[in-house]
Amino acid sequence: MIDIKRHNAGFCRDHFLVHCREQVRRAIHDHKMVEPGDRIVVAVSGGKDSLALWDLLVGLEYDVDGLYLGLGIGEYSGESVQFARKYASARGLKLHEVDLQDDLGFTVPGAASVTHRSPCGACGLSKRHVFNTFARDHGYDVVATGHNLDDEAAVLLGNVLRWETGYLGRQHPVLPSAPGFVRKVKPLVRLGEREMAAYCVLQGIDYQVEECPMAEGNRHLGYKEVLNALEERSPGSKASFLFGFLERAHAQFATVAVEEREGLSACIECGSPTTSEICAFCRLRERASGVSLGEGR
Amino acid sequence: MIDIKRHNAGFCRDHFLVHCREQVRRAIHDHKMVEPGDRIVVAVSGGKDSLALWDLLVGLEYDVDGLYLGLGIGEYSGESVQFARKYASARGLKLHEVDLQDDLGFTVPGAASVTHRSPCGACGLSKRHVFNTFARDHGYDVVATGHNLDDEAAVLLGNVLRWETGYLGRQHPVLPSAPGFVRKVKPLVRLGEREMAAYCVLQGIDYQVEECPMAEGNRHLGYKEVLNALEERSPGSKASFLFGFLERAHAQFATVAVEEREGLSACIECGSPTTSEICAFCRLRERASGVSLGEGR
Repeated sequence: MIDIKRHNAGFCRDHFLVHCREQVRRAIHDHKMVEPGDRIVVAVSGGKDSLALWDLLVGLEYDVDGLYLGLGIGEYSGESVQFARKYASARGLKLHEVDLQDDLGFTVPGAASVTHRSPCGACGLSKRHVFNTFARDHGYDVVATGHNLDDEAAVLLGNVLRWETGYLGRQHPVLPSAPGFVRKVKPLVRLGEREMAAYCVLQGIDYQVEECPMAEGNRHLGYKEVLNALEERSPGSKASFLFGFLERAHAQFATVAVEEREGLSACIECGSPTTSEICAFCRLRERASGVSLGEGR
Repeated sequence: MIDIKRHNAGFCRDHFLVHCREQVRRAIHDHKMVEPGDRIVVAVSGGKDSLALWDLLVGLEYDVDGLYLGLGIGEYSGESVQFARKYASARGLKLHEVDLQDDLGFTVPGAASVTHRSPCGACGLSKRHVFNTFARDHGYDVVATGHNLDDEAAVLLGNVLRWETGYLGRQHPVLPSAPGFVRKVKPLVRLGEREMAAYCVLQGIDYQVEECPMAEGNRHLGYKEVLNALEERSPGSKASFLFGFLERAHAQFATVAVEEREGLSACIECGSPTTSEICAFCRLRERASGVSLGEGR
């Protein structure tokens, strides 16, 4: 039996799988994540969340392919891609692959070391850029990511502790499309980390169990610990934190985010929307790959 | 030396006392807590925060008296009042006393048991009511409470975890006066718990060191633990959480609070502003004391 304290419920195998599918269906419906005819690309890392998401979207009969981004994090990346490939080939699904080193000339550890910034910052920037531009250039309408309830609650806690009003305005299960931006959706937002691990086990999905070695000791994991302690004391804390925000507070911050989106122009290197001439990703790429910008123009 | 990590500073005795006074002076100035000629009453519990606050306000030469509210929590209350009396008499200061049992016919433990609600709820309601009505009836312009940075950050965390938008709108170092409400101020909002304990030790102020026995295991203490863990990892977290809220988010919630204040009428028992005919305090008192409302009318 799979016990979910915040729902005060225990599920047998079959009903647990139904529960997961219903939570995803409800998230997609409530937040209008997908429109009829949309082509979806799932950002696949080889971990439990993104593979479960892909599996759930296939089960709900969406038109959905996968995209794996190779980050160049040694053995960890080498293993992760195998889980993604194995999942896709066993089910006859289409997995695209982009490799930061082969296709863009740098790796996440390299970028972090050159810029003296956190690897998680360089990684997040690269993922947002590559998933968006790949989807835009390959005719996908939606990028779906495997952020679950635990992830979103931890990001929210970090944003709230520093009152990052711009980030708070953009923290939502759906970021609508805008010129240069494909719609981004988080269909797992109603499901917790433990549930996604149980889903994979029950569905026979092998996944990368290791945490990324570069993430060790980062703030995000600290926020997860804090929220786990609060959830332990008072089950349902994470869900009421996240959904209370979405229902009663997000709108107050959203106007700030809309204002920030105005006045963006196209990056002269890659065409992505940016506040300056060259976008943050292309600047990172120039420093990390050693390739001067403008050489290709 | 007193080490304050969030200021990246260590102070000798004399400069630490100057630091505390300056933080209080700055809080009062920045938030316009006191106007010339204001008479202040400090809500004194006998603990470190309220006695330090009284001491600091006297040092800043404000016109300030104390008010002790007896909560009827057995030995704990019996001891606490002694610390308050001893502090006041040694310095020739005026301490008013109100006793829930003697003056209003009930105690906090009794009220909690009769209403099957948390003692902290009954205590908070009683304190807000008595401090406000006492100040109003005795010509005080301001009620000052000893809530410090740790208290305010913990309350904020609780309000944010449940997105209590009404409470968020009212969470501010100053609650302005309104019909039936005396102005309420929190001049210790820039000083932490450890700083207040050090202040009392250095100034030779004896205080109640025990936590209230009824508060054990309450949520507020859990939030303090969580924030202490975050502060340990990243000094300054509490201050940036609280002051970031005040600077960048409070205003978004304040309109809700103002709307809630509209449409209040006077309680037919005690005259306090209330949303219904009889205020929450008088209803608590009726149930806890066994005295029927209206008997005095």
